[in-house]
Amino acid sequence: TIQHIFKEIFKASLELQEDDNRKALLVSRKKQKEDTVVDIKGVKIGGSEPVLIAGPCSVESYEQVKAVALNHKRQGLKLLRGGAFKPRTSPYDFQGLGIEGLKILRQIADEFDLAVISEIVSPHDIELAIEYIDVIQIGARNMQNFELLKAAGSVNHPVLLKRGMSATIQEFMFAAEYIVSKGNKQVMLCERGIRTYEKATRNTLDISAIPILKQETHLPVLADVTHATGRLDLLLPTAKAALAAGADGVMVEVHPDPAVALSDANQQMDLGQFNDFLSELQASGLLKAKARV
Amino acid sequence: TIQHIFKEIFKASLELQEDDNRKALLVSRKKQKEDTVVDIKGVKIGGSEPVLIAGPCSVESYEQVKAVALNHKRQGLKLLRGGAFKPRTSPYDFQGLGIEGLKILRQIADEFDLAVISEIVSPHDIELAIEYIDVIQIGARNMQNFELLKAAGSVNHPVLLKRGMSATIQEFMFAAEYIVSKGNKQVMLCERGIRTYEKATRNTLDISAIPILKQETHLPVLADVTHATGRLDLLLPTAKAALAAGADGVMVEVHPDPAVALSDANQQMDLGQFNDFLSELQASGLLKAKARV
Amino acid sequence: TIQHIFKEIFKASLELQEDDNRKALLVSRKKQKEDTVVDIKGVKIGGSEPVLIAGPCSVESYEQVKAVALNHKRQGLKLLRGGAFKPRTSPYDFQGLGIEGLKILRQIADEFDLAVISEIVSPHDIELAIEYIDVIQIGARNMQNFELLKAAGSVNHPVLLKRGMSATIQEFMFAAEYIVSKGNKQVMLCERGIRTYEKATRNTLDISAIPILKQETHLPVLADVTHATGRLDLLLPTAKAALAAGADGVMVEVHPDPAVALSDANQQMDLGQFNDFLSELQASGLLKAKARV
Amino acid sequence: TIQHIFKEIFKASLELQEDDNRKALLVSRKKQKEDTVVDIKGVKIGGSEPVLIAGPCSVESYEQVKAVALNHKRQGLKLLRGGAFKPRTSPYDFQGLGIEGLKILRQIADEFDLAVISEIVSPHDIELAIEYIDVIQIGARNMQNFELLKAAGSVNHPVLLKRGMSATIQEFMFAAEYIVSKGNKQVMLCERGIRTYEKATRNTLDISAIPILKQETHLPVLADVTHATGRLDLLLPTAKAALAAGADGVMVEVHPDPAVALSDANQQMDLGQFNDFLSELQASGLLKAKARV
Repeated sequence: TIQHIFKEIFKASLELQEDDNRKALLVSRKKQKEDTVVDIKGVKIGGSEPVLIAGPCSVESYEQVKAVALNHKRQGLKLLRGGAFKPRTSPYDFQGLGIEGLKILRQIADEFDLAVISEIVSPHDIELAIEYIDVIQIGARNMQNFELLKAAGSVNHPVLLKRGMSATIQEFMFAAEYIVSKGNKQVMLCERGIRTYEKATRNTLDISAIPILKQETHLPVLADVTHATGRLDLLLPTAKAALAAGADGVMVEVHPDPAVALSDANQQMDLGQFNDFLSELQASGLLKAKARV
Repeated sequence: TIQHIFKEIFKASLELQEDDNRKALLVSRKKQKEDTVVDIKGVKIGGSEPVLIAGPCSVESYEQVKAVALNHKRQGLKLLRGGAFKPRTSPYDFQGLGIEGLKILRQIADEFDLAVISEIVSPHDIELAIEYIDVIQIGARNMQNFELLKAAGSVNHPVLLKRGMSATIQEFMFAAEYIVSKGNKQVMLCERGIRTYEKATRNTLDISAIPILKQETHLPVLADVTHATGRLDLLLPTAKAALAAGADGVMVEVHPDPAVALSDANQQMDLGQFNDFLSELQASGLLKAKARV
Repeated sequence: TIQHIFKEIFKASLELQEDDNRKALLVSRKKQKEDTVVDIKGVKIGGSEPVLIAGPCSVESYEQVKAVALNHKRQGLKLLRGGAFKPRTSPYDFQGLGIEGLKILRQIADEFDLAVISEIVSPHDIELAIEYIDVIQIGARNMQNFELLKAAGSVNHPVLLKRGMSATIQEFMFAAEYIVSKGNKQVMLCERGIRTYEKATRNTLDISAIPILKQETHLPVLADVTHATGRLDLLLPTAKAALAAGADGVMVEVHPDPAVALSDANQQMDLGQFNDFLSELQASGLLKAKARV
Repeated sequence: TIQHIFKEIFKASLELQEDDNRKALLVSRKKQKEDTVVDIKGVKIGGSEPVLIAGPCSVESYEQVKAVALNHKRQGLKLLRGGAFKPRTSPYDFQGLGIEGLKILRQIADEFDLAVISEIVSPHDIELAIEYIDVIQIGARNMQNFELLKAAGSVNHPVLLKRGMSATIQEFMFAAEYIVSKGNKQVMLCERGIRTYEKATRNTLDISAIPILKQETHLPVLADVTHATGRLDLLLPTAKAALAAGADGVMVEVHPDPAVALSDANQQMDLGQFNDFLSELQASGLLKAKARV
């Protein structure tokens, strides 16, 4: 077994080296001690105050997005999300308005002084997208679409990267590394639930991923509680939990008339529900900077 | 397809009936609107104020438990856990002190005016156990040990039931129903992480299970963050998250000298770490009654 | 980092030791090179010829079991399974005939010269059970009911141990070790599907577990394709797959009138379906000894 | 509850309609009764005889691929796989030779009269790829890269689509539908293991998926046992199992010198191991047409 010991020493050296490689990741906290703060039109993500990102699942019309934007202004919110290119399980489902959707978002953003976030699904649309949207979202299904990651890394524009449905935390970090290693440092991570055997929720919010990602990387970490739970009745408690666990922000879906939504009709809040959600979240104190010390 | 429609109507009727059955569960919120509050030597679990349950993984000696008990008194804590019958993966691992362990717990409880909690693994030990311990714990591996559940249901003594490693929320509720249907209403539920593909944590804390169980049942709901994460660095953020999500309490492991612990040496806090954990949890405000409104 | 290297050498030594421990398991192939063959009334399990175990989910009446036994005789089968103590998710579901069920099984076994298999769920029923049944089954929910394992290890009687719903292969081996380490060497392992995110089947048959268990242990390995799939249309292809992967036998459920079965009504074959299943399995050649060389 | 019944009737009608939609899928067996057979340079996939696809994980050099091709010729094999565009978890891992790799494959294919298969990862490379390779592979990470699926659907060229790491069988079918609905009917499905809690294997081969996909679709179904298990010692039993369950073929990795492979060094067979694997598979009779009746 002396042979075994040498083999193990060799293996251990390999692991040490691998550990060094990880240490060397650009997204790693070991590489950069201080938090990366992404500034989106003056809203700082990853700073002392958590943020709320909200908007409809899909951009359906100017009027629809405007209704959400008006409510955002009333509530003092700045960050509006909306899907233009929709990755859908079935080819026969509504696939989004595409570039028209991005134009609506830009128009709304300019009229109401908001920042807009939308998912891009093709590497060749990245260049185009930065003309219209303030944050490029890369969705869960594309977390290991490496061509898309490289394209998003080649521009100097904020990127919100969602965790893959069954990605490990380490794979998630490597996906972010694909972007950062190409030169784009404005990357935000978003936990959105993982796929497990439990079907009471659409996915299982991996709450532990939030403090782990905060420790292991210097990037902002958000939680999309709409996709993580798929249930309106769980948005408030899971949003509170995410903030209590150290998330830099929360994402939710809100639609002026969810019943007629072209996607995710069952899991979007209407404006009244959203305003209640927001005021309860504010009342909890967890959205305030001081709660985070 | 008219045949199909009739078949579906029939199926729908069956589902309706099943829904009625679930409505009829004794643990269901539909059966009892108000929260069940379990009173353990004056500490109310499921009431307005969340609780903290702490103690060593295994009872190893009188001196060991005493060290934890003394610290509990200094910190104003009342609930002490400790394992006497240890369900261990390998037959060659330390199996616990058994009845001697329960006697140590009783002695400590009496000397320091604490309430003690310990796991029971055999139906025939239930009667004996209630002489020594204030709360019978049924562990994750035994959540569907129906003989044990029935035995625990046949005494009038508080029971803390942990969720099975891969139990659905519905199966968890049915396991509680086994106890309550035998006449014992003092049941507390404990989420302790589920088994998923992610190995960064020992298990995956299913944070959504907490608000779901609070909605669907009238029983107190706790979170064991030590077993859910298996990582000291995640205890504080996940404990905060559990409380923010509505948990009635949190369970953690603390040992006077974790390095020499006979089980779970890597995941138990020492007394200094535990006191820091406690003071940070208190500082968050989430352990206070008012945070729960 | 020289410190690191020493730490890793230390860790590697620990792992070596752990590896030695595993080597030392009584169930391990490293401990015993030749296959354990369990002889049940002349039927050899783990030998050169694979076996088929079949019978109703629950023993419901003498007449019901007799109908299956008569068919077994016609088909030349010797091993009949039937549940008397039924672990059911809900306390309101049919819980089995208990000891009456065991008596029916014994009577049938004697009348038709069959060997009977039934699940036991309480440690205190083990002694009693061996008077009535030829093989004690320990079910998936009880794979880590260590008191039950120890009781089953204390008698000299064949035991069929099912893999837990979310047990790792290593945990499964340790569960078997609990039995064997108490002195009972007649243990058979049974893969019955694991819990995953995929819901097209009741569980996911972990086909790889069969060759792994054959390599790592010297015990017979069976596959319960009824519980693994929960679908009649998958019994034949998965049974073939299990045998092709090296299983020593297959378990299925058959009921004279599944529509009125008191449990698992949807996944039991009727006698006609069962006879078709059997003849197709025989036609594949996979049930024959020579296919296994 | 009469209201409930109407609601359920309504829901049932919706489900009926959804069922009709699924029936209407172009990949569905309900739409096309007879099996789709894909002809690749005279080799028929999905016909009466199962096939074996083999080759190195990555194309590394002309000499490396030639060594495998020579062995293929000796063994009478026609289908050679090799990766040119490698989707790798880390941006710092070998990313493949890209277009140079495709050229090597074409050269080998022409010299040795073989058909070559390689993964394409970017929609814009599809047009180019069909000049060099006989089958376009879409990998697990890209199963829901819908832009890539649409591009692959827009050419008239065989496509081998792998199941996503945590894709349901239904999602897998919808992914295939994306391709077929664009007009390309030459689609083959490949089960390659799903992500579960069990870590004894790299993934868990979902053996039941094979008969389900054969029943629900008319497309050829293959099994990649190298990626499913990640273990050399499991290739033979799982390959046999896949064929016994009805697979139209098996995929494995073979490399002339696995120790120096630039990717997957641990799970590729060398030529000797591969030839042994092949002869044992042939000896089992499961690769022959008559075994499939």
